[in-house]
Amino acid sequence: MRIRWAYEEIGQPYAVRLVSFDQLRQPHHLALNPFGQIPTMEDGAVRLFESGAILLHVASKGPGLLPEDPVARARAIMWLFAALNTVEPPLIELEQATFHERDASWFPERRIMLCDRIRVRFEQLARWLGEADWLESTFTLGDLAMVHVLRRSEGMGILEDYPNLVAYVARATARPAYLRAFQDQFAVFANRP
Amino acid sequence: MRIRWAYEEIGQPYAVRLVSFDQLRQPHHLALNPFGQIPTMEDGAVRLFESGAILLHVASKGPGLLPEDPVARARAIMWLFAALNTVEPPLIELEQATFHERDASWFPERRIMLCDRIRVRFEQLARWLGEADWLESTFTLGDLAMVHVLRRSEGMGILEDYPNLVAYVARATARPAYLRAFQDQFAVFANRP
Repeated sequence: MRIRWAYEEIGQPYAVRLVSFDQLRQPHHLALNPFGQIPTMEDGAVRLFESGAILLHVASKGPGLLPEDPVARARAIMWLFAALNTVEPPLIELEQATFHERDASWFPERRIMLCDRIRVRFEQLARWLGEADWLESTFTLGDLAMVHVLRRSEGMGILEDYPNLVAYVARATARPAYLRAFQDQFAVFANRP
Repeated sequence: MRIRWAYEEIGQPYAVRLVSFDQLRQPHHLALNPFGQIPTMEDGAVRLFESGAILLHVASKGPGLLPEDPVARARAIMWLFAALNTVEPPLIELEQATFHERDASWFPERRIMLCDRIRVRFEQLARWLGEADWLESTFTLGDLAMVHVLRRSEGMGILEDYPNLVAYVARATARPAYLRAFQDQFAVFANRP
C-alpha cells in the first residue's frame, strides 16, 4: 500500500505481482529478498527489497514526494527513517506480541508496557506536528511513510488520544493519490475468495 | 560510531558534540530531534536526526560509500535499510528486554524466543553473503551499516555460529577508516572519569 501510494503521488504507472506466503520461501523470491519478506520491486535493472529503499527509489523518479531543495530533501528522507525506525518499531512489537505471545502468562502485563512505548512516540510526534499540516512545510515522502505507519495503529485505541495526529492522518488519506491507491489495494482483496 | 566511520570512509573532517542523558530532554536538543534521541547532525543548513538519514547524507558528500552507478547505488541504500529495519530490530528487542524485563518472570522464556528471531536473520544474511567479501560487489554504506549492526550482537553468543559473518565483521573492522573512527570514539570514553 505504501508503494502504491508513492507511485500514485508521482503519477507513474506500475504493475503489482502478488506473492503468496508459500512463495516467500521459494528460491525465486529469496533471490529477490534473502529475508523472505515483501515488498520487493523490479524497475528495469533495479531490483530492490525493503519498503524504505523502494519508497526512496520511487520518490526519486518523479516530482511530488522529494523537494528539489537539498535541505528540504534531506529532511524529507529523515522523516522516512523516523517513521520506519522510531515510530513503527513499537507498533510492530505490539503486533508481534499480540500474535505470538497472546496466550503467554505475561501478555497482559507486557501489553501495557508496549502500549506505553507507543504513547511516548505518538506524544513526541504530536508535539512536533502541533497545528501544522505536515511534518515540514510541504507534504513529502516523510509524511507518506509516517501516515501509513500511524494507520498501522488502527484498532489499538491509542491514536485517538492525539487529535492533531488523527487530523494529520485524515488530511493525508484524503489525498486523491491515497484514495486511488486504496481503491486498487482494496480491489485485490475484494476480488479474492 | 557509525557516523564517525562514514566520515572516515569519505575522508572528510567532522566535529563531535557529546550530549548527556539530561540534555536529551532539554528544549535545545528536542528542537534538533523531537524524539529526544541521538545522534543528530548539523552540516551547514542541514540539520538531521535518525542515524540512517545522517549516514545517507554523509555518504552522499564524498566517494567511497555510494557507487556512482545508479543500480549499485540503489542496492547500497537498500542494504542500509535492511540493516536498520530487518537485522537490527530483533537485536534491539533483546537489548530492551534484557534492560527492562530482566527481573520479569517471563524473561528466561522470552529471551529464547528473541534469540531465535536473531538467528533467523543471521542465517538468512549468512546465506546471502556466502563466500563473498561484501553484500554487493564492493564495500558500500550498506556494509558499513550492516557490520555495525552485527557488532551490536557482541556478547550475545549468537554471531559465533555464523563463521562467514564473523569473517565479514573482521574484514570490515580492519579497514583503516574503521580503526581511526574506533580510536577516536574510544578516546572519548578513555578520557572521562
